[in-house]
Amino acid sequence: MPFRTTLRVEFCDTDAAGIVHFARFFVYMEIAEHEVLRSVGLSVMQPDGDHHVSWPRVSVACDFQRPAKFDDVLTIEVAVASIGEKSITYTFRFLRDDQLLATGRTTAVCCRIVHGLPPQSIIIPEDIRQNLASLQE
Amino acid sequence: MPFRTTLRVEFCDTDAAGIVHFARFFVYMEIAEHEVLRSVGLSVMQPDGDHHVSWPRVSVACDFQRPAKFDDVLTIEVAVASIGEKSITYTFRFLRDDQLLATGRTTAVCCRIVHGLPPQSIIIPEDIRQNLASLQE
Amino acid sequence: MPFRTTLRVEFCDTDAAGIVHFARFFVYMEIAEHEVLRSVGLSVMQPDGDHHVSWPRVSVACDFQRPAKFDDVLTIEVAVASIGEKSITYTFRFLRDDQLLATGRTTAVCCRIVHGLPPQSIIIPEDIRQNLASLQE
Amino acid sequence: MPFRTTLRVEFCDTDAAGIVHFARFFVYMEIAEHEVLRSVGLSVMQPDGDHHVSWPRVSVACDFQRPAKFDDVLTIEVAVASIGEKSITYTFRFLRDDQLLATGRTTAVCCRIVHGLPPQSIIIPEDIRQNLASLQE
Repeated sequence: MPFRTTLRVEFCDTDAAGIVHFARFFVYMEIAEHEVLRSVGLSVMQPDGDHHVSWPRVSVACDFQRPAKFDDVLTIEVAVASIGEKSITYTFRFLRDDQLLATGRTTAVCCRIVHGLPPQSIIIPEDIRQNLASLQE
Repeated sequence: MPFRTTLRVEFCDTDAAGIVHFARFFVYMEIAEHEVLRSVGLSVMQPDGDHHVSWPRVSVACDFQRPAKFDDVLTIEVAVASIGEKSITYTFRFLRDDQLLATGRTTAVCCRIVHGLPPQSIIIPEDIRQNLASLQE
Repeated sequence: MPFRTTLRVEFCDTDAAGIVHFARFFVYMEIAEHEVLRSVGLSVMQPDGDHHVSWPRVSVACDFQRPAKFDDVLTIEVAVASIGEKSITYTFRFLRDDQLLATGRTTAVCCRIVHGLPPQSIIIPEDIRQNLASLQE
Repeated sequence: MPFRTTLRVEFCDTDAAGIVHFARFFVYMEIAEHEVLRSVGLSVMQPDGDHHVSWPRVSVACDFQRPAKFDDVLTIEVAVASIGEKSITYTFRFLRDDQLLATGRTTAVCCRIVHGLPPQSIIIPEDIRQNLASLQE
């Protein structure tokens, strides 16, 4: 059973073609991804001692079937496709009523974030891994 | 020889991780794609009688190697990977100095845009095809 | 009694200063304004025969007292400050818990939107005026 | 003589009304403001020992006369209206050819930015003040 959320297309999400700008779908994926993390008690900026654990994306993609428009209420289904040693891959389906509008995929790498340094990839801490694993059941 | 353009990372392109938000790379690709079209005398909203010919994207992807930051001057290299009967695929490389930050790919479909109707895919008109083909030489 | 809505600050709304980018507050005002219209049965793109009635803004302002951050849940209070012959002025207060973060003001002009022509200001139609007036009671 | 810069309206800056989204004008003001600072050898994130000096905005406004559209090349004129003990006020004029599209105003406060703490307002350092003052001559 995938995680499911809804959001309304805001006017500022559209462009002069009268439809949602394609790059905005990646923001929608991020919003849904953060809701997924929140649903298992995690944050995308998880405090861990004097630093943070976060999830920069290393690979993302989206395929578009039909346009979305202002005021559409979209359902976003999120599934955890795989959890690696240091990374997680989500897949996304965008629906309006029962019509598929787009499908997406993002891979994020678990990183230690220390202010002023570049993100450093780390093995997913065990407690976080267990929380994420509960999404696959 | 790929098409090449530069742009400066604006402050509004960054996020609280201190780096360019990943979705913004797709906007950068679009800006570069529109410059490519402009360089061969085309517009992404090409008037054609009482309608327009435009290029909605059907498939896009990006892989990230290194983050970009505020005030970075990025070089974007664009190549035309293929031109089909109704579609065109571009590939992108993002560089800061000689360092590769990200690579991307977008496929856009040639469509007739009539106000109030959904975009309708069409065979790429011959004059537009010839202009685009000059990018592959 | 002002209209009241809440929204969560998304990660993409922040910038490298670690706070919500100031321009984003105007998007929040627009989202709240559209909710206000929806609450009295109106849309910001109200169909009217073969055209639309919409509300381009002619004057906007915002004063900032305290920054907002990722994951903050903001309360936005909207009041109708005045309804003129052709325009409406809203005022906004942004709160986190009971703390005032910002105050804003927007004036929008009632316009007939015909595709391909510039917006043309019109006297607010009587049925729309009555719906809006119910917000001032 | 005001500072003057130009920028091209990108497709992603437009909305379903076919014009530049009003909130985007504040991003344009910020881009122009940062160019002004750059022109006198300053950065909006000026390193100063182990912290930064930056300029959060406390009050902004914009009045709109005419819409801007995709592919328009806008001229933005920036003037320094006043420099206070801790703040600076800029005014902006947006032109397309010789036609005035919008006027704006932003007031920013000089702040010490220490990571993890809220911005703290400070008296504008003397070297920065002298650089800024050169804009008023």
